[in-house]
Order: sequence, then C-alpha cells, then structure tokens
Amino acid sequence: MAEHTTISLDRRLTAEYLGSLLLALIVVGSGIAAQQLSPTDIGLELLENALVTGVGLYFLITLFGPISGAHFNPVVTLVDTLFNGRKLTDLLFYALVQVAGCISGTLLANFLFSGPLISWSHHHRVSGPHFVSEVVATLGLLLVIFGLSRNGSTKVIPVSVAAYITGAYFFTSSTSFANPAITIGRMFTNSFAGIAPSSAPGFILAQLVGVGLAVALIQYLFVTTSNQ
Amino acid sequence: MAEHTTISLDRRLTAEYLGSLLLALIVVGSGIAAQQLSPTDIGLELLENALVTGVGLYFLITLFGPISGAHFNPVVTLVDTLFNGRKLTDLLFYALVQVAGCISGTLLANFLFSGPLISWSHHHRVSGPHFVSEVVATLGLLLVIFGLSRNGSTKVIPVSVAAYITGAYFFTSSTSFANPAITIGRMFTNSFAGIAPSSAPGFILAQLVGVGLAVALIQYLFVTTSNQ
Amino acid sequence: MAEHTTISLDRRLTAEYLGSLLLALIVVGSGIAAQQLSPTDIGLELLENALVTGVGLYFLITLFGPISGAHFNPVVTLVDTLFNGRKLTDLLFYALVQVAGCISGTLLANFLFSGPLISWSHHHRVSGPHFVSEVVATLGLLLVIFGLSRNGSTKVIPVSVAAYITGAYFFTSSTSFANPAITIGRMFTNSFAGIAPSSAPGFILAQLVGVGLAVALIQYLFVTTSNQ
Amino acid sequence: MAEHTTISLDRRLTAEYLGSLLLALIVVGSGIAAQQLSPTDIGLELLENALVTGVGLYFLITLFGPISGAHFNPVVTLVDTLFNGRKLTDLLFYALVQVAGCISGTLLANFLFSGPLISWSHHHRVSGPHFVSEVVATLGLLLVIFGLSRNGSTKVIPVSVAAYITGAYFFTSSTSFANPAITIGRMFTNSFAGIAPSSAPGFILAQLVGVGLAVALIQYLFVTTSNQ
Repeated sequence: MAEHTTISLDRRLTAEYLGSLLLALIVVGSGIAAQQLSPTDIGLELLENALVTGVGLYFLITLFGPISGAHFNPVVTLVDTLFNGRKLTDLLFYALVQVAGCISGTLLANFLFSGPLISWSHHHRVSGPHFVSEVVATLGLLLVIFGLSRNGSTKVIPVSVAAYITGAYFFTSSTSFANPAITIGRMFTNSFAGIAPSSAPGFILAQLVGVGLAVALIQYLFVTTSNQ
Repeated sequence: MAEHTTISLDRRLTAEYLGSLLLALIVVGSGIAAQQLSPTDIGLELLENALVTGVGLYFLITLFGPISGAHFNPVVTLVDTLFNGRKLTDLLFYALVQVAGCISGTLLANFLFSGPLISWSHHHRVSGPHFVSEVVATLGLLLVIFGLSRNGSTKVIPVSVAAYITGAYFFTSSTSFANPAITIGRMFTNSFAGIAPSSAPGFILAQLVGVGLAVALIQYLFVTTSNQ
Repeated sequence: MAEHTTISLDRRLTAEYLGSLLLALIVVGSGIAAQQLSPTDIGLELLENALVTGVGLYFLITLFGPISGAHFNPVVTLVDTLFNGRKLTDLLFYALVQVAGCISGTLLANFLFSGPLISWSHHHRVSGPHFVSEVVATLGLLLVIFGLSRNGSTKVIPVSVAAYITGAYFFTSSTSFANPAITIGRMFTNSFAGIAPSSAPGFILAQLVGVGLAVALIQYLFVTTSNQ
Repeated sequence: MAEHTTISLDRRLTAEYLGSLLLALIVVGSGIAAQQLSPTDIGLELLENALVTGVGLYFLITLFGPISGAHFNPVVTLVDTLFNGRKLTDLLFYALVQVAGCISGTLLANFLFSGPLISWSHHHRVSGPHFVSEVVATLGLLLVIFGLSRNGSTKVIPVSVAAYITGAYFFTSSTSFANPAITIGRMFTNSFAGIAPSSAPGFILAQLVGVGLAVALIQYLFVTTSNQ
C-alpha cells in the first residue's frame, strides 16, 4: 500500500480522489442498478452489488496503487500512518479527498440512474449485530491489507481485498462498509446501498473499534518480512 | 497493448477481425441466451451477460494481445496512435476490421440462436444520463488500459479490462458499450444487447468525448515508466 | 499441454482417466444440482452449471497438467498429435480412457444425486444452429489452448480454458460441449446436462469440423515461439 | 502448506484458530444471509454461499498460509503429518484449535444475524449418496492440496482450493463439507449451512475414508518434485 514517495502530493491526491469517486460510483451505481433490475430478490441484488464491488476494487487498486497507494479509505491511511510513519498532514489530506471523492461518486451514481442528485437515505442500519459486524468487517479488511503487506505478498493485495469485500457483503449483517468515507458518501443516496445519516456515526465508531483491534492483532501476528 | 511490430499486417488484421467477431458473438450471443433463459429478471440477464463478457474479454485479450494488441475497439487504437506513434493507415485498417468483425459476430450470434440474420434493434437508449454514462465508461476503460500500460503492469491488463467491463455493465446506466465498433455491431440485433440505430451516433459521440478526457487525465496522472 | 515425457504411460493414463471422470462429475453433477435447486429459471441453472464447470476446469488442468497434459478431450489429444508428434498409440489410449472417464463420472453423478445409475437422455439437441455452435465452440477451444501454447503463455492456459468454457456455455446455443468424450458421457444421464444418443453423432461430427478449421487457422495465425 | 518452522507455536495456533473462526463465519454467515435474502430459490442460495466460501478461502489461505500453513481442517493437518513428518502433538493442537475456531465462528455468525447464539441444527443429511459425496469431496480436496504441493505449484494452492470448494458445493449432493472441524461447527446453527448432530459422525467417517483413498492415490500419482 506504499506509494512512490517521489510522486508529487497533488498527483497522489488526484489519484486518491478519482479512485474514491469511482469506488462510490461502483458501489452505489451497481446498487441502484440491482435494485431497479432485480426487484424481487434481495439476495440477487446483493450478489450483483457484491460481485461488481469486487471486480471494481480489483481494477481500482491495481491501477491507482502505484500512484497513491489506493487506500480510498481513511482507516487504511490511518493504520498506514501508525505503522509506516506517514505524516499527519498526509493523513488529513488523504481523508479529505477520500470523503470528497465518495460523496462525488455517489452524486454521479444518482445522476447516471436518473435520480435526484442528492436524496438522503432512509435506510436505518443500527443494531448491536450491525455494530459488531462493522467491527469485524474493518478488522478483517485491515488484517488482509497489512497482513499481506507484512508477509511480503503485496502483489496479491488487489485480488485479496476484492475477494474479502465481495465475501464480507454476505458474511456480515451490515454488508461491510468498513470505510468511513464510503459510509459518509452512502448517506447521500436513498437507494439499495444507502445508509441513513443517523446510522452513520455508529458505523464509523464501530470501524474505529475495528482499527484498534486490528493494530494489536497485526502487531502480534505478522512480523515484517519486507522492507517496503 | 503493443503488438510485435515484426508481425505482418495481414496477420495482425486477421487477429483483430477474429477477436472483434468473437467479442460481438460473446456479448450478443450471451445477451440473447440470457433473454431467452431468464425472462423474468432483467438483473439476472445482465449478470449473465456481464460475467460472460468479462471471461470472454479475458481470454480474447490474452490470446490475441501478442499478435494484434487485442484492441477490438477503435478508440483504443486511436489513443494508442496518439500516445505510441502508430501510423494513421494502421488506425484506419484496424478500425475497419474492428467494425466488420463486430458486425460479423452479431450476425453469427443471431444465426446461432435461430433468429433472422439481421434484425434492426428497437432498443432506444438516448438520454442525458446515458450520454454521460458512455463518457464515463470510455474514460474508465482507457484509464485502465493506458494507465496500467504506463505503470508497467501490462501483464494484468487482460484481467483488469475484464473486471472493469463486467463491473461497468452495472455501474453505468448505459451498460457501458465504450466501443464504437461494438456499438455499430449491436445495431444489427433486436435483442437484449441491441441498440437502435438512431441511438448509436449519440453513444459514439459520447465515447469520443471520453477519449478527450482520458487523454488529458492519463497525461497528467500516469508518467511512462516502461519503454514499450 | 505437453506432459513430462519421462512420466510412465500408466500414470499418465490414470491421471487422464481420473481427470475425465472428475470433469464429467463436475459438469453433470452441477447440472443435476442446478436443475433440482433452481427449477424455475433455466438461465440461473445454466449460470450455476457454467460457473462450476469453469472453476472445475481450472483446478483439474492445474492439477493434472504436469502429469498427463490434462486434455480430458480426444480432439485436444488429436491436435496435439498433429502438431507435436505424439504417437498414434498414445492418441488411441488417451481417447479410450477419456471416454471411459467421462462415462464413469456421469454414472457417479447420477448416483450421488440419487438417480438411477444409467438413464438415457431424452434431451434432443439437433439443428443447424446447434451444429454450427459446436463447430464454433470446438474451434474456439482449440484456438485458446494451442494459440496460448504457441505464444509461450502456457501458464495461463488453465484459467483461459476455464474462462472460455464458462463463456461458451452462454454464447453458443449448444452450450458448447466441444469434446467427443464428454458428449458420449452425457448420453448416460437424463438430466439438465444430458444429450440424447441420437443427437451425439451430429455433435461429434461438428467437433471434428471444428478441428479442421482450427488446425488451419492456428497454423496461419500463431507462429511457434516456445520450444516445448 | 508448510509453515515457517521458525514461527512460534502460539502464533501458529492463533493464526489457525483465527482462520478457522473466519472460515466458519464465512460459510455459516453467508448461508444465513442467503437464506434470509433469497428465500424462494435454493440454488441461488447455494450459489451465494458457494461464491462467498470460495473468495473467503482464497484470502484466508493467502493471508495465513505463511504463518500456520492455513489448514483450518484436521484432515489436512493429518495428511501433512503423514507426508511431511509433522509431530503428533502438533496435529493434536492444530485439530483442537480448528474445532474451537469453527465453533466460535458459527456462534459469531448466529449472533451477527440476530439468531440465538446456539441453535442445534435439524438439517438431516444422512444417506448413501451423501456418504459417498463426502468421501469424494475429501479425496478431491486432498488431491488438490497435496498434488499441487508435490507438483511444486504451491503458489496456486489458494486459488485452486477456492475453485475446488466452490465447485464441490454443487457437484456433490452433500455440498462438500470435507472437513471434520467445520462439520462439528455447523452443528451449532439451525440454518442453511447447518448439519444435525446425528448426521455429523457419518460425515466425519466418510471424510476419514476419503483420507485413506487420497493418501494411496497421491503416493501413486504425484512424485515429489519440490523439497519443501
């Protein structure tokens, strides 16, 4: 997940903004398409949404990884800051463009599927099992990214993250947001992939709990074997 | 996407014609099959169509890439001409066999599924969101191909293009044609994957707008690291 | 597709028999499962059947390739004999165990899903479009295998064959048998993947026509670049 | 499947426990989700369950392989002990944490999807075809793992195991448990992926029969070519 440090900050932030925008377009756009085209089976909608998100993450991380690290997710940048000495201003800039990108991508998805640009979601997702789901989802995502990185298996991170998230849409009851930026972006669409603004803070809190557990577990389980 | 320059033009054009024919057979044939076999859920039809197109693009690009570059798409050859100094006559010949291949493949699909060889599509697809969808779809496709190429990641282009198009069938409202040759070919079938001839010019115009945006963005974001 | 020539014939034939048996079990077993579990949508049945066949071909070719070449298909062994000087007795032995394996696998599938061991298929599949479908399907399969082999891309043959066949289930109207051994095996099951014995000779004839076209096309298009 | 022997036993057992927990969460959680979201088509439920299990196995084996070998399955550890001289105490510890992990993951899945923590399964699965299915499923899984290992193809074990199990959910009538630890874990959930406690001993017996056949067949067919 380490970008070339010789790449200028503006190019890295452009890549991170563009990737976050496309990620939100992929997640929300395919969610709206699934809802419109497969209205009678929610499992089939989620399958379409999950497979598209998976292939999308694969090409986005492969494409933008060498430029910005392809985080598209503030908790990934946060853990990268903790582990790899990234500067705090970097973290701040990354988080800002990630959130801006995810909001932009959601609005674009709304437009492409002929909805109003902004329609606040009424999709309430707050419960104990949802909270624990987001803790588990975020913990798992960080284990995959930083575990593989410490194993020296950086080449398979794109396909592994894609596999992880595709699966996690189904094996958690929250459908695994695992990302504060996409959580904020998904408040802006009252469709399949949306989340009610009142549910977002709980999701983000759960994701931060996942960060804490992940950092401890990764430190114990994965010893650095590559000097990336 | 660079073919061996020592390969004779007739072999390269044969590969490009054959690949374009097979691509249209894959897209249109699986579209007709999906429509005939899953008549009650359009999302499931699109999922079948998208997955088959994805695996098809994977093996076609892997197989024909070393011979012709495996473009199957005039806008890919156009950008390759702009970036890599391909001759204008090459562009012309490539575009001609790509269009001829896509029409041939569509007629073959019509025949294999027992339809009339030619049946003009009545599938109207013109709207603002469709137009912007095609701009975005083409921009994304070119980013993937030429971004990965400039990153030096040419080995993963086949699987990345497959992943991109599979996803883009769902995350745009136009189902991402992103290719003038296949757009022309798909006018010749009045089935799931067809496009009414009156809608085709708008799609192709949008694809050219996508080319312009892609060229600017690629120049800014991706610095050449390989000398292919 | 070239096996280690130092491996004894009995081990190679065992691998080829076992692989053909498993291939038929995968194709027929998943066909019966799909028919029993998804009775209301034939497209979904075919999707399940196609995806399982694809992942099955991937692991079978990966596993048995280094031992027997992992043909599981007399037309593959035939073209390998023409191109690579395999002995005619080898071709004969391979074809025999491939047919025996495909019949065995079909009977095992019938047993595992609680049907009678043998139930002749009543699934009639004879028509002009079906015949041409099998020509195209076999031509494409051989192009993929021997084209990649001549390109020196042998490492991606397992995933490419898997991608090709998964797609071809949908983009031809015959669902792409492309294999005389599996065609014979599939006569023995009156279920989703079956073929009526009276339809089998036409399918096999079409496959042989595909062989002829493939040999000519491969000779023209793909120049040997590896000395395997 | 060989872990770094320099890694301490407690880290290896932690990885094996965590991986087994996540495997059970993936299998059971996606099973419950599929059942809740796609209630009208069992084939679609199984497809969702199979695809999620496949991508899950891919990332779990990729992630934990370098630490513990990523067995998550007592019969894999057993055959590894027979072939590669693992200590018997190792086998015992591995089996214990694998069973504990699978039970923990099942309880977590029950909780995430708002069910009671423990609900004994009423899903009876005992019959001759089910028994033979488990023999075949286990035999195939061990062939894939140890055959590829002896071929020197260890890098493709994660994707091959994922492909194998995804397919085997459909091409056997038992849906291929092929793992005593997950068989025990799946007794604790009265949902799609559950198995009645009275059916579990028969499944485990069949898996052990599969071990015997696999050991003989691997010894005959695959000669060690790597000295791992």
